[in-house]
Amino acid sequence: MSIPPDIVCLDDYERRGRARLPADIQAYIGGGAADGVTLRDNREAFARLRLLPRALADLRGASAAASLFGLRLEAPVIAAPMAWQKLAHPEGEFAMATGAAAAGAGCIASCQASVDMTELARHSPAPLWFQLYPQPRREDTLALVRRAEDAGYRALVVTVDAPVNGVRDAEQRCGFRLPAHVRSVNLDGFAQATATRAQPARSPVFRGLIDAAPGWDDIAWLRAQTRLPLLLKGVVHPDDADRSIALGADGLIVSNHGGRVLDGMPAAIDLLPAVARRVDGRIPVLMDGGVRRGTDVLKALALGARAVLVGRPLYWALATAGAAGVAHALAMLATEFEAAMALTGRPTLAAIDATVLAFPPR
Amino acid sequence: MSIPPDIVCLDDYERRGRARLPADIQAYIGGGAADGVTLRDNREAFARLRLLPRALADLRGASAAASLFGLRLEAPVIAAPMAWQKLAHPEGEFAMATGAAAAGAGCIASCQASVDMTELARHSPAPLWFQLYPQPRREDTLALVRRAEDAGYRALVVTVDAPVNGVRDAEQRCGFRLPAHVRSVNLDGFAQATATRAQPARSPVFRGLIDAAPGWDDIAWLRAQTRLPLLLKGVVHPDDADRSIALGADGLIVSNHGGRVLDGMPAAIDLLPAVARRVDGRIPVLMDGGVRRGTDVLKALALGARAVLVGRPLYWALATAGAAGVAHALAMLATEFEAAMALTGRPTLAAIDATVLAFPPR
Amino acid sequence: MSIPPDIVCLDDYERRGRARLPADIQAYIGGGAADGVTLRDNREAFARLRLLPRALADLRGASAAASLFGLRLEAPVIAAPMAWQKLAHPEGEFAMATGAAAAGAGCIASCQASVDMTELARHSPAPLWFQLYPQPRREDTLALVRRAEDAGYRALVVTVDAPVNGVRDAEQRCGFRLPAHVRSVNLDGFAQATATRAQPARSPVFRGLIDAAPGWDDIAWLRAQTRLPLLLKGVVHPDDADRSIALGADGLIVSNHGGRVLDGMPAAIDLLPAVARRVDGRIPVLMDGGVRRGTDVLKALALGARAVLVGRPLYWALATAGAAGVAHALAMLATEFEAAMALTGRPTLAAIDATVLAFPPR
Amino acid sequence: MSIPPDIVCLDDYERRGRARLPADIQAYIGGGAADGVTLRDNREAFARLRLLPRALADLRGASAAASLFGLRLEAPVIAAPMAWQKLAHPEGEFAMATGAAAAGAGCIASCQASVDMTELARHSPAPLWFQLYPQPRREDTLALVRRAEDAGYRALVVTVDAPVNGVRDAEQRCGFRLPAHVRSVNLDGFAQATATRAQPARSPVFRGLIDAAPGWDDIAWLRAQTRLPLLLKGVVHPDDADRSIALGADGLIVSNHGGRVLDGMPAAIDLLPAVARRVDGRIPVLMDGGVRRGTDVLKALALGARAVLVGRPLYWALATAGAAGVAHALAMLATEFEAAMALTGRPTLAAIDATVLAFPPR
Ligand SMILES: Cc1cc2nc3c(=O)[nH]c(=O)nc-3n(C[C@H](O)[C@H](O)[C@H](O)COP(=O)(O)O)c2cc1C
Ligand SMILES: Cc1cc2nc3c(=O)[nH]c(=O)nc-3n(C[C@H](O)[C@H](O)[C@H](O)COP(=O)(O)O)c2cc1C
Ligand SMILES: Cc1cc2nc3c(=O)[nH]c(=O)nc-3n(C[C@H](O)[C@H](O)[C@H](O)COP(=O)(O)O)c2cc1C
Ligand SMILES: Cc1cc2nc3c(=O)[nH]c(=O)nc-3n(C[C@H](O)[C@H](O)[C@H](O)COP(=O)(O)O)c2cc1C
Repeated sequence: MSIPPDIVCLDDYERRGRARLPADIQAYIGGGAADGVTLRDNREAFARLRLLPRALADLRGASAAASLFGLRLEAPVIAAPMAWQKLAHPEGEFAMATGAAAAGAGCIASCQASVDMTELARHSPAPLWFQLYPQPRREDTLALVRRAEDAGYRALVVTVDAPVNGVRDAEQRCGFRLPAHVRSVNLDGFAQATATRAQPARSPVFRGLIDAAPGWDDIAWLRAQTRLPLLLKGVVHPDDADRSIALGADGLIVSNHGGRVLDGMPAAIDLLPAVARRVDGRIPVLMDGGVRRGTDVLKALALGARAVLVGRPLYWALATAGAAGVAHALAMLATEFEAAMALTGRPTLAAIDATVLAFPPR
Repeated sequence: MSIPPDIVCLDDYERRGRARLPADIQAYIGGGAADGVTLRDNREAFARLRLLPRALADLRGASAAASLFGLRLEAPVIAAPMAWQKLAHPEGEFAMATGAAAAGAGCIASCQASVDMTELARHSPAPLWFQLYPQPRREDTLALVRRAEDAGYRALVVTVDAPVNGVRDAEQRCGFRLPAHVRSVNLDGFAQATATRAQPARSPVFRGLIDAAPGWDDIAWLRAQTRLPLLLKGVVHPDDADRSIALGADGLIVSNHGGRVLDGMPAAIDLLPAVARRVDGRIPVLMDGGVRRGTDVLKALALGARAVLVGRPLYWALATAGAAGVAHALAMLATEFEAAMALTGRPTLAAIDATVLAFPPR
Repeated sequence: MSIPPDIVCLDDYERRGRARLPADIQAYIGGGAADGVTLRDNREAFARLRLLPRALADLRGASAAASLFGLRLEAPVIAAPMAWQKLAHPEGEFAMATGAAAAGAGCIASCQASVDMTELARHSPAPLWFQLYPQPRREDTLALVRRAEDAGYRALVVTVDAPVNGVRDAEQRCGFRLPAHVRSVNLDGFAQATATRAQPARSPVFRGLIDAAPGWDDIAWLRAQTRLPLLLKGVVHPDDADRSIALGADGLIVSNHGGRVLDGMPAAIDLLPAVARRVDGRIPVLMDGGVRRGTDVLKALALGARAVLVGRPLYWALATAGAAGVAHALAMLATEFEAAMALTGRPTLAAIDATVLAFPPR
Repeated sequence: MSIPPDIVCLDDYERRGRARLPADIQAYIGGGAADGVTLRDNREAFARLRLLPRALADLRGASAAASLFGLRLEAPVIAAPMAWQKLAHPEGEFAMATGAAAAGAGCIASCQASVDMTELARHSPAPLWFQLYPQPRREDTLALVRRAEDAGYRALVVTVDAPVNGVRDAEQRCGFRLPAHVRSVNLDGFAQATATRAQPARSPVFRGLIDAAPGWDDIAWLRAQTRLPLLLKGVVHPDDADRSIALGADGLIVSNHGGRVLDGMPAAIDLLPAVARRVDGRIPVLMDGGVRRGTDVLKALALGARAVLVGRPLYWALATAGAAGVAHALAMLATEFEAAMALTGRPTLAAIDATVLAFPPR
């Protein structure tokens, strides 16, 4: 499982990764909700933005290093929380964390990790964050928080954009089901809501499922339970950003869940500016969705992000070459990002603002 | 005729439905006028609209139920009037009405139904509306109205957008002709205008055909004949909306007839806002054309519609699996719609407005 | 040579016509200048425009008939002047004129006709216009004018947009050359400029060729020579429109020569509004380029044209079925146009204005 | 190696040229940075611009001739500096210079030429400019300047947009490496920075490579060393244009390096207007990137350029037919340009301004 020589950018890992996985797991990893409009737009919106270089800038002592809630990063890039990584590699989340650490990137363990969260933190060469789905029963949620604190996770990322499952047509068509050796081990014994699946009968969404959905009161309650930094992932409306801050959130992650939940949402990078403007520096805003190039990282920072998360490419890299693949992918991204900083004449992250864009969005 | 397992969204029925039908009937059902510009735009315009979710909203007691001119609906979705449904299934309109009722959706019988309208109403598990093409002779029109009243139809939908046939190239190329066992049984014995077909001679449109076209006076006359709610289908100009209300219309359906009549019309969803603004709540405005996803229903309601009609997908579902297919298609749509309501934080139809759109049209 | 049954719109003739012609003649007829940007845009610009129907309009006594400089037309449609029609059919221009007359359309004979202009006028069932390229020697131009007058042509169309040949890559690549039996018979014995062809030497455009190009003084001179109505074809700049009127032009034809001369020109329909606004009814403005549908005719009239010319589709129809093909093509167009008038509620040409457009250009 | 008869425009040389070269050299010549967004946009942005012809203009004595920093040109077109031309043809830069001179075009020798710069100037039938990459050691830079002066180069073009290599995925994937007989002979013995290549380790950009990047002080220093006209190539920000002029630059070349360095930059032609407006005639502004047609040259001049550079097409022409190919390509371009001038009614370069554009950019 070494790194194939024809891999020269993040996208190259998709082809290689797919070649190693059965169709239904490919559909699970690569798919988006419904017609994939948002999934595609996540990429296209980055491509629509244009950068305006500066010539001959002074770049002595330049650095892309970032520091964020207990993470020291070579570049402002973090591995996104993604469920069940054993689907792609026998070492699953262990390999992801190791690869991210090797590249000096951050890493967020999913609530639906396929390995024990305590073991994971122990073996990770660098500190991690923990992504939390509020559970139907508060006692279960609290158990997860305590384990995260005890294991040394440096922050909690509460994902708030998936109260119901997305309309995942590709997965459904493939009949994706978890193989026997993969499951959300950290949720063992917890109460679960049942899955949304259209039936020739009545809709299940408003008859049961939705009762398990978390509300703002759950965030307030959670805030009171822990002193770990709390980030809300999936906040995209400026009013919700305000409310998050009012309830004590320490950070926000603007995200459309990689286009996996509500198809027809704007591209993540198009959602960022309004949120960043409203937050106006009160707390760090991060983003994810469609980041594939160093120039994407630059564009996200130009529009107000403090860092970005990367999802699918790392899943494919994991499938292709395990920890080494993840590290390689993240290092390529950092190199591209530094080159983009250099060409736009920005020696530090602080020097990156909307003026790197040729035609800033209104 | 059971539901194939790979059908996970409305579009999937097209492939399956086509496989069961000869080419000319496929062309009749699926085709649009001329170059299909409007047909395609009906879909693309929905895809251009973007939704802005709300996080952590309170959704307790949420419901998508609607009530409209005698119909009680699980979701604001109605089967559009479509001619000659025996083309797709031996039980034709009976199966359509049964399927719609099973899913808690409304259903409009076409004036060109291939089954007896009185029988249809009698066997339908739920009340229906009747779609009326004003006939060349008023006595014939009146006969239809009386039959509709007697059979218990709850509303009359007068289609006003097809005074001449569309330029249906696809059908013409296939040489579509009604098979022997299918015809507009409810028009038996009525006078008919002859069909438009380009000939190397002079144009037939302004030499005869157009004389049979209905005018505003026919609407006024019709209004005086019946106490059934009267909806005009195919009104797209705000001035025509005003005039309709002045003449006593109880509802409007903004429609381009699924892109089947005048190619080059705007997408139906792009026509809706101006009409809805002009009507300003005086009477309910519905729309159809290109609705394929729960998010489309949400977008239509956000732009002023009280409900939507769905056409072709139900024809394909009928061909694929009869009443069960229709029910399944409509249930999938309702489920998707509820999920979209949940993710945008709207517990009721009344809570849906233009703020669910990320970039509302001006 | 009868009309194939699968021909239901103008575009269908292209496929059929091509099948009957060698590749180089196809390239000559169908090609555009350089990269074909303008050629494609001529069509796409029509497709971008949207029509707004009116319901239930009073259409009694409706008619699409037009009258223009000696032509009485069933619909405001004229066969464009196109060179060397014997390339497509042994009867060449005779068949074109016959077909146009049969459909009640106008017809313009090209200066580069492959049949004798006097014979052509004599055999044509309806009056014609004559298209004139000012010749390098004024005496030759004058000879053409006199012949046109004597033969009974009703107007002169002076084409002013082709002082140098277009960059016709497709033709060049095919090595298009006129076959032995086809030539500009009406120019026999006249002085000619030599053709533009890039060579590894110096450019020939500014070294000789351009000296033969006509100027405004030639138009003034021409105006003084004849009392025939004078139309300038290829005027697209509002200032040039003014100047044309000042010099006594009786009509203008907004045209980009079907995208055959300067690639990168706007679509013809996009050029029309500014010219029509400037002319402001002082003289009739016509247009051509990309007209393929009755709705295109309607759009052109909505934006200020009094009539449209149709080019390539008639060349293909000629190749496919001679005069009958031309008549059939033009009748289909007229039928579609009447249907479009009916659906937008316009009983006469005078009733057509920018309000038929859903989103009129600014 | 004669000119194939099916070559009728610049683009045709790409197909022919590629057929003569191995895949990795094709990738080197034809490729762009990263995803090729800027590479494609260079072309598409030209295609988006529309020209507005003038009819019947007086073109007597018309000429496209230009004079610029010691070059007398048949048309305002110059062969762009491109490295290692022996990759395409055994005579490399000698053939390029000969071809350009034959067509009356300018020519810029690359700093990374594969032939001796002194020999090149001696054998060139017409004067050349020299493109300079500031070297890590100033003494090396100075040596190049002195050689250029001594050899009779008429201007220095300092390329400032490539302080780090672009992310050249296509090349990397092909494993492009210089063959043994090709190298930057004029840099023999000079100190070089090492190449950027993403590695699973840390990023090399900010750890070493960037120290070799030139700064504004290097320009100031260079200005003091030579009296040759100094042009800066790759200045795209209006503020950088100002600074260049302040430091004594004699000309600017707006360029994105053919989309080879920072993917996501605007198309070159879209970068031009803001720079031209800021410079406001103080010094000549040139541009390159995507020029393939005479109409492109016209558009560039309309938006403020005094001349354009052409890159890749000449590399392909060189590969196809050596000096003759280069001459032929440039002559075709000049012919097309003269035709475009004629059709827009501009007899001289001075007469070309934004009014040739139908819809000038704001
Ligand atoms: C296979 C997969 C599983 C995911 N699982 C989770 C998860 O468990 N929790 C979560 O908050 N987000 C999850 N996400 C969303 C990611 O955290 C992230 O928002 C998204 O992948 C970013 O978009 P990108 O893939 O385009 O980079 C998942 C995404 C993928 C692709
Ligand atoms: C096969 C077919 C037959 C139709 N017949 C009728 C009809 O008889 N009366 C009518 O008012 N509309 C008719 N329509 C139009 C539909 O009521 C509806 O406006 C349209 O199908 C909505 O667009 P959609 O198919 O994209 O959902 C028909 C549509 C189709 C596809
Ligand atoms: C094969 C061909 C030959 C033409 N020859 C002439 C001509 O001799 N004189 C002229 O004024 N226009 C000529 N034109 C241009 C047409 O008159 C007309 O402007 C153009 O074809 C309209 O565009 P369309 O083909 O898209 O309808 C020619 C066009 C074609 C396609
Ligand atoms: C193969 C190749 C090599 C190049 N080498 C150089 C170079 O050595 N120095 C330089 O300033 N620009 C170099 N360029 C950039 C060109 O000078 C020019 O900016 C670019 O090719 C213009 O875009 P075009 O190829 O679309 O015409 C090179 C371009 C290519 C295609």
